[in-house]
Amino acid sequence: MCGAALCNVWITENGRETMATKSKKVAAKKNDGVVKVALLGFGTVGSSVAKVLAQSKFAGIELTHVYNRSVARKKESAAAKFVPATAKWTENIDDVLKSNVDVVIELMGGLNPTEGWLKKAITSGKHVVTANKQLIAYKGVSLQRLAAQNNVQLVYNAAVAGGVPVIPGMKQGLGGDRMQRISGIVNGTCNYILSRMETGADYATVLKDAQQLGYAEANPSADVDGFDARAKLCILSRIALHADLNPDEVATQTISSVEAVDFMYAKELNCTIRQISRAQLEGTVVHARVAPMLVPMDSPLAWSHGTQNMVVTSGLYGGDVVFSGHGAGGEPTAVAVVSDLLAVAQGAKSVELPVRKRQVTGEFMAPHYLRFVVDDKPGIVSSIAGALAKVGANIDSLLQKPGYPKHKLPFVVTTEPCLTSTIEKAMHAIGKLDCMLEKPMTLQMLVADDTAE
Amino acid sequence: MCGAALCNVWITENGRETMATKSKKVAAKKNDGVVKVALLGFGTVGSSVAKVLAQSKFAGIELTHVYNRSVARKKESAAAKFVPATAKWTENIDDVLKSNVDVVIELMGGLNPTEGWLKKAITSGKHVVTANKQLIAYKGVSLQRLAAQNNVQLVYNAAVAGGVPVIPGMKQGLGGDRMQRISGIVNGTCNYILSRMETGADYATVLKDAQQLGYAEANPSADVDGFDARAKLCILSRIALHADLNPDEVATQTISSVEAVDFMYAKELNCTIRQISRAQLEGTVVHARVAPMLVPMDSPLAWSHGTQNMVVTSGLYGGDVVFSGHGAGGEPTAVAVVSDLLAVAQGAKSVELPVRKRQVTGEFMAPHYLRFVVDDKPGIVSSIAGALAKVGANIDSLLQKPGYPKHKLPFVVTTEPCLTSTIEKAMHAIGKLDCMLEKPMTLQMLVADDTAE
Repeated sequence: MCGAALCNVWITENGRETMATKSKKVAAKKNDGVVKVALLGFGTVGSSVAKVLAQSKFAGIELTHVYNRSVARKKESAAAKFVPATAKWTENIDDVLKSNVDVVIELMGGLNPTEGWLKKAITSGKHVVTANKQLIAYKGVSLQRLAAQNNVQLVYNAAVAGGVPVIPGMKQGLGGDRMQRISGIVNGTCNYILSRMETGADYATVLKDAQQLGYAEANPSADVDGFDARAKLCILSRIALHADLNPDEVATQTISSVEAVDFMYAKELNCTIRQISRAQLEGTVVHARVAPMLVPMDSPLAWSHGTQNMVVTSGLYGGDVVFSGHGAGGEPTAVAVVSDLLAVAQGAKSVELPVRKRQVTGEFMAPHYLRFVVDDKPGIVSSIAGALAKVGANIDSLLQKPGYPKHKLPFVVTTEPCLTSTIEKAMHAIGKLDCMLEKPMTLQMLVADDTAE
Repeated sequence: MCGAALCNVWITENGRETMATKSKKVAAKKNDGVVKVALLGFGTVGSSVAKVLAQSKFAGIELTHVYNRSVARKKESAAAKFVPATAKWTENIDDVLKSNVDVVIELMGGLNPTEGWLKKAITSGKHVVTANKQLIAYKGVSLQRLAAQNNVQLVYNAAVAGGVPVIPGMKQGLGGDRMQRISGIVNGTCNYILSRMETGADYATVLKDAQQLGYAEANPSADVDGFDARAKLCILSRIALHADLNPDEVATQTISSVEAVDFMYAKELNCTIRQISRAQLEGTVVHARVAPMLVPMDSPLAWSHGTQNMVVTSGLYGGDVVFSGHGAGGEPTAVAVVSDLLAVAQGAKSVELPVRKRQVTGEFMAPHYLRFVVDDKPGIVSSIAGALAKVGANIDSLLQKPGYPKHKLPFVVTTEPCLTSTIEKAMHAIGKLDCMLEKPMTLQMLVADDTAE
């Protein structure tokens, strides 16, 4: 919001108000008040950014460069019409890095060569807006330091949860709280798969659908095995818990071993299953994990369907805050990118929160859901119960739905809260029993008030 | 997040990291790098702010003044221990306004004398952080202009939805979208009352409970009649829709005429009832209304229970984004206030969005829920249907639960989408029928894709 004295508001041809960027606060000084912008990457998000900029006509912002491989092909795409005729299309990154653009928007992803290019952009005085979660997860702290040294901004609100403003919301609005933990659904692909499976579909079918819809890659590992979510969890932890984590050290568990039967048993327990990314600070250690987990049906996390994202932050003073919306897709992510661009163009500065290196462990004290598929014989329950008793884990319930053949019988045990490592030890022993037809499945059960070790 | 070069991070006695405020970016220049803070109002929120500041020990921030009436009594309160011994307690506002404090935190509420005092604070070079929704709704634009002229900040993220960072989330994270509408539950008192009534309690009982719990005032009008929510809706509209509205022109409807029977019929329609504040921009006119409305059970707005707040923004590019959490209470609101204080202390600047005066109307095109209590006689339904037909409103359903006496029979009609003014005209005629024992009740039904006129 601003009054007349704060910024000029003027009307474009279509009668819409435009963002004021010609005020004295504007970041761009080298281009007569016009903020020149280069787009690295003209894929789904990049072309949506071009579309939003073209349709919204923010005064004082000009897209001047588009870098991509195979420019000839990109220029033929339908979205190319959103790129101004005056903009330079290039396959040579030096055309951008050696130009006088004010802001580089990076939407290529990956660590290499992106990191080197963005360092060059920063050291040559260019602001950087990026949606690159892997780069920010692994290199965000050092890049931020480099940006500060060069007196430019590095902004990455699009790197987590796309169009859901959880990063700016936490930075500007929750910095005064003492954040204790954060849980979220930050991978739309996994959420699409699991919320479809909730209604009875099986994993392979849904994955295929997701691939056809463009929600999942041909090789879906980054999504389903949790590596995408892990990067986002590290970024969220840095802001919420002021903790700099090594993404490689964050425990992950694939969703690909979740089966239709697990949803049936979850329902019996008044739960569903979601890929949850969670972290909490205990003393100087961060407990973090990305895994399919049982989520109570009355938790906000259970309400998230399809490709929706949701993040729940839990603060000592403010309690739980929920952010949710479209976490992926070209236009929602473009909203985050363009919002960052407008902030940079205005010279707006976000709150800086402290951050320090923290150790990370996958250990949680939580109830667990254990699913076995056995060739049913007398003594199996006794063996399982014995293995659990040996590590001190108490059984809370035993569920066995009728209608399955004795020789391939799925059944479920839930435990009272116990440590992840404790349950893993028992499951290792149980997995060796002769009657086990499949590797037993262990899922953490999320409860509102559980604690880390 | 910041690297070492960005800001200093240091450890207090309790080993917790603290916010860096001694960097060169610090707002305070007149006090050797220490940001001096005055608190106006030491009630629920004020004492919680003192508590958060005392417990979190943010380096470089010092509470130096507490202004309140009846200082002697306040100093006896349990929360007084959170105020540093060095701070000055005063009943004389000039002790603050003529001091060298850097930031004034205003938690007194009301327009007078608050507005005049804050103007003096601003013109004497003090930053202002406020949770005062009425002041910001009525005077926010002019105060913001004054602040800009005096090169100080006016920040009010606590004025709407307490600890839920909807204002900073929208400003920093959704500025690049073209916001089309906003709907929310922004009054915790009404949400407490209505979500309790959902489980069968009647209005009078729940209101009494709310008063005993401190959720409602002895005179609950500001809450239940919608004036509190109206102010918040105007602030949200200013940020989301870039529209400056006159709060007095926003239509309101009390929740006090909602009865237990309405929840029963709402349930039949797979809905519940919430006090909804909604606004949408159509051309140059804002359609806005604060009223109890029927909300589909599968809408996020139906999930909000107790004193929770929730805001749903709907953007052209980013779709719906949901923010929810504790919208009231001392500590959640203190989180917003302290977060604003930290931002001001760091010299962080929020994004400025354009704003312009907009006309407002209470007119919506929506289905309506009409509840009648009649002395049942032949021809009543025909008369009602006739009155609706006369204005062109189509009946969608007619509900009549068994078990009520004929001489005092509640029944419900729902209509297909029609204009608010159309339905009001019909209801005016219907209200004059001899058989009507009570003023008929009209509630707008919220549907995901409804449109303004």
